[in-house]
Amino acid sequence: MNIYDIKSPDDIKHCSIPELEDLCVQIREFLIDSVSKTGGHLSSNLGIVELSVAMHYVFSTPQDKFLFDVGHQSYVHKILTGRVSQFPTLRQYKGLAGFQKRNESEHDAWEAGHSSTSLSGALGMAIARDLRHEDFEVVPVIGDGALSGGMAMEALNQIGALNSKMVIIFNDNNMSISKNVGAMDEAFTRLRTSRPYNNLKEDLKGALSGTKTGSAVLKSMRSVKNAVKANVVDTSIFGEFNLDYIGPVDGHDLRTLIKVLHNAKNHDGPIVVHVMTKKGKGYSFAEEDKEGNWHGVSQFDPQSGQTLAKMPAGHLSWSEVISKTLIDLAQQDERIVGITPAMIGGSKLRDFFNEFPERAFDCGIAEEHAMTFAAGLATSGIRPFISVYSSFLQRAYDQINHDVARMDLPVVIGIDRCGLVGEDGETHHGVFDITMLRSIPNMILSQPKDAIEAQNLMYTAFMQSHPFTIRYPRGNTPYQKLKHYTPLEIGSWTSWQMDTYEVIIITYGPDVDRIISKAKVNQLPVRVVNARFFKPIDTMMLEEICAQKKPVIIYESDMLAGGLSSAILEYVNDHHLATEFIRLGIRDHYVTHGSLPQLRKLEHLDINSLCELILDLIKEKHHAN
Amino acid sequence: MNIYDIKSPDDIKHCSIPELEDLCVQIREFLIDSVSKTGGHLSSNLGIVELSVAMHYVFSTPQDKFLFDVGHQSYVHKILTGRVSQFPTLRQYKGLAGFQKRNESEHDAWEAGHSSTSLSGALGMAIARDLRHEDFEVVPVIGDGALSGGMAMEALNQIGALNSKMVIIFNDNNMSISKNVGAMDEAFTRLRTSRPYNNLKEDLKGALSGTKTGSAVLKSMRSVKNAVKANVVDTSIFGEFNLDYIGPVDGHDLRTLIKVLHNAKNHDGPIVVHVMTKKGKGYSFAEEDKEGNWHGVSQFDPQSGQTLAKMPAGHLSWSEVISKTLIDLAQQDERIVGITPAMIGGSKLRDFFNEFPERAFDCGIAEEHAMTFAAGLATSGIRPFISVYSSFLQRAYDQINHDVARMDLPVVIGIDRCGLVGEDGETHHGVFDITMLRSIPNMILSQPKDAIEAQNLMYTAFMQSHPFTIRYPRGNTPYQKLKHYTPLEIGSWTSWQMDTYEVIIITYGPDVDRIISKAKVNQLPVRVVNARFFKPIDTMMLEEICAQKKPVIIYESDMLAGGLSSAILEYVNDHHLATEFIRLGIRDHYVTHGSLPQLRKLEHLDINSLCELILDLIKEKHHAN
Repeated sequence: MNIYDIKSPDDIKHCSIPELEDLCVQIREFLIDSVSKTGGHLSSNLGIVELSVAMHYVFSTPQDKFLFDVGHQSYVHKILTGRVSQFPTLRQYKGLAGFQKRNESEHDAWEAGHSSTSLSGALGMAIARDLRHEDFEVVPVIGDGALSGGMAMEALNQIGALNSKMVIIFNDNNMSISKNVGAMDEAFTRLRTSRPYNNLKEDLKGALSGTKTGSAVLKSMRSVKNAVKANVVDTSIFGEFNLDYIGPVDGHDLRTLIKVLHNAKNHDGPIVVHVMTKKGKGYSFAEEDKEGNWHGVSQFDPQSGQTLAKMPAGHLSWSEVISKTLIDLAQQDERIVGITPAMIGGSKLRDFFNEFPERAFDCGIAEEHAMTFAAGLATSGIRPFISVYSSFLQRAYDQINHDVARMDLPVVIGIDRCGLVGEDGETHHGVFDITMLRSIPNMILSQPKDAIEAQNLMYTAFMQSHPFTIRYPRGNTPYQKLKHYTPLEIGSWTSWQMDTYEVIIITYGPDVDRIISKAKVNQLPVRVVNARFFKPIDTMMLEEICAQKKPVIIYESDMLAGGLSSAILEYVNDHHLATEFIRLGIRDHYVTHGSLPQLRKLEHLDINSLCELILDLIKEKHHAN
Repeated sequence: MNIYDIKSPDDIKHCSIPELEDLCVQIREFLIDSVSKTGGHLSSNLGIVELSVAMHYVFSTPQDKFLFDVGHQSYVHKILTGRVSQFPTLRQYKGLAGFQKRNESEHDAWEAGHSSTSLSGALGMAIARDLRHEDFEVVPVIGDGALSGGMAMEALNQIGALNSKMVIIFNDNNMSISKNVGAMDEAFTRLRTSRPYNNLKEDLKGALSGTKTGSAVLKSMRSVKNAVKANVVDTSIFGEFNLDYIGPVDGHDLRTLIKVLHNAKNHDGPIVVHVMTKKGKGYSFAEEDKEGNWHGVSQFDPQSGQTLAKMPAGHLSWSEVISKTLIDLAQQDERIVGITPAMIGGSKLRDFFNEFPERAFDCGIAEEHAMTFAAGLATSGIRPFISVYSSFLQRAYDQINHDVARMDLPVVIGIDRCGLVGEDGETHHGVFDITMLRSIPNMILSQPKDAIEAQNLMYTAFMQSHPFTIRYPRGNTPYQKLKHYTPLEIGSWTSWQMDTYEVIIITYGPDVDRIISKAKVNQLPVRVVNARFFKPIDTMMLEEICAQKKPVIIYESDMLAGGLSSAILEYVNDHHLATEFIRLGIRDHYVTHGSLPQLRKLEHLDINSLCELILDLIKEKHHAN
């Protein structure tokens, strides 16, 4: 069987085990080759080749429903469901999505991008099936990292209570993106190192019932009722949730996997199949990676494992600018600690963790707890910095509002990957945070235009005592370490202008300098306002801007509804400033995946479109005069 | 010791056990008498009288930190920390808060109102203590309901890993507000019915080591490494989180409680003290309550247990209007199911649960999972209705955005307790949901002005296929069951006016008819627009309104920033309608507790202030003419 001949999962159902094993080899080679050209999620897909093949061998999509938690590990599933030829377009505009997508294939029953949702979705599908008297299997696949997310545990709690049939595949690679943390991981280790469930059960029963004392012990155990069954014989953390369990199973042993999945399929009620997989399996660079460097990759050379992405000289990623500053400030102020919800690598906090191991906290995939943990620290004389990707910060809305802001605690929140992120698409664009946070009292919201401002904003954040957010995008920026920090006046904007200007652009982040450069090159008569604070806004400058009676563009690469432009309109209305604005930003829809330039063009947010608009405004005005 | 003589917890430290027991009797009598006059949380406070006394006897606040999860069960703590004389002002404006409040007493180290935050906060405090080399105890008190909330489990996961000293009091009354649900509750039951931990451990060890077979078994158990320790001998769900455990302890046996808390205080690392309490203990009506009717109460007659709150004839609570309509629609459409995160009583869903037990789901205190569970159902041909209090819906922001709205699934969300809620205060006002949800694509947001519109909105919601929210406040409304439903055009507003009008008021919910009544009585020349949809808005009517060139007031009892008025300003700006509005609503701060009329007055949102404003506007206009 050649992988290019797979049109549907039915095509593999007649294969022999050796043929399927050969298919796994082909899939691995294909994944390494294909992802080396497009970038994408590699390690986690290499880790579940055999598992995905076994799943499609035993179950039958689209009738049966597969829910890959997060969904970045669904590449093999995509290959097996007739999408192999689309892999050259992976994560590109109008190309194959990097996650499961319902509108991409009938075999994609669910979609996600954020962690820990699959069990709740699966329970919904299973209950819907039962209510409609339908007959299909529901198969969520969840990793050990995602399983420690709160909502996954909430779901386990109800799955164990409702007892609807479901095969939960616990894809245990002992990592989320990087090494797992947390006490549950120790519980998982107990399972990993235990002998397979059935054997242990038999041994114990045999040994205990063989002698008088043994019988007495067994009886004494029974006397604690369910405790015997659940805790002594077939115990596990899943047992505590009233779930049956098989495992651990070697996730790269296809024959056993198929046998175990068959058994699980014939089992009544919910069952957890514990599958031990190795992230990066079959590609040595990825196998040896402990830091998550091979979790999501850009283009690379398959032979050397070297990335082809080049960082321009003198540049750093925005995350790194923030982290370096954090280290510098933490050296001067021992009250500062750093917190991340399982994003040490992505948020570039490794150096901070190495330098301040006692003051660095990885909370696991647990944004909610992480935020309130920060609140707890802040009540007690500590100055926490917590860095969260914008789109994952959505998980902590209530904790920011109810815990941090309501108690007005000095938590500094780094909002990483803000704005459009590109190839990860819909679920990862960080375009909601301004509108999400703007109505929360006591909050200060900011974004630096460059690395200098980033350093000064970090300094400013720790100099004051309210909740303070600093957002920054994916990508790189020129960086030089500041010799001296300058505190920035909270709520102050800055302004740059050509000698004379006819149009005013209010914007923020790296767009400020992008527009200034363009204006210089094209001799555009504009003034560019750096709205580095979204809350509070610079009302003095805003009043002065309105007084100019010139066209004003508000240019955001975030949701238009409720964002900075909305804050400006509210102030202008309430203070009778009678000014109209041209508002550019993301309209009321979800933005797909693609390269940043493509997406910006799609949203009419590319700098060329902006320049055309500026020229039109100038022409109009001259025409009017 | 008379409770009125307690100025600080030090006052009880010299008491004998009999004196403390007498104090408990006084406290119970006081609670019943006092809450019968003010209303408040009764059952849960009656349940932890001995526990609170024991805590203050063994620990020393304010040095030691007590974090009551949610905080509604902190009345006894308030009595013991010198606040007894303030109880006549409980939950009243400028009076004693119904929850822990940091600015109320140095003995209140934490505050909340939403569930499941105490463990995260406690871990923050414990780590802060360790980093600062301080020496105090951190004592979170969390119920079995709150413990099943996802963020509590996320916190347990890190508490077990970091191993910082902490005494976690597991206040197990086998209820949250009403009966608990979920598989964890079965795990708790195993603990409840088990013999006390230490004894079991000894017995087993003794029995096992006594004989050759026993030794072999013990050895075989040891061979599965930690599994022996954690799963066989001292197992419990807490063991899975690597936490030491003592219990269960009778929560009304003061002598034992004190002994156990002393032991826990001397224990290193985190330990869970499992305390079995009875909600409502000592007051028969509350003890026998299984539905949560005695959880939060209004004024009542202590002798008969009868509430003094009177429902006007022909009125129902808003929650009941929605639930009755849900039942009616569910009778006609078997795809409809009902979901609640532990709010069967509050959301008045008991009748629905009784009539459709197969189609009714209580997810426990788990808003996140509940919302994505609804999404899963909606992918598979089911039409879920989920009812969540507005302020608790904040917990599910990401699930609404990432799961429900992004997949554009037909989930109908009832947003209960929207707007100001009164006595529960800061943490419970449902004033953020419009601004929180307005920027999320695919969402439809609505609020009915009366019970007729409520019924028609519910009907409309199930007639269409997008995420649809219907919000409704606390309190009652006149009700008559509709004979025929009328679908409402999505995004349509309605309008009422006096024969001639000079001022236009755009508002929503029950304020529409309140203002209309006032206008009729006072002969105010106004037009009242019922903005029953916040998204989409009625742009045709809005354009027509702007064309009138009359003063327009937008009157909201929700956050001003980002809400309906913001949506209107955005549209008016983008469509060059050049209209200014007078925006009334809640300014950028948290609103305290108090009666609704007081709070509305405080926020300048009472109808009288509105009338004065209208009259001023008319006067101004006439002056100008």
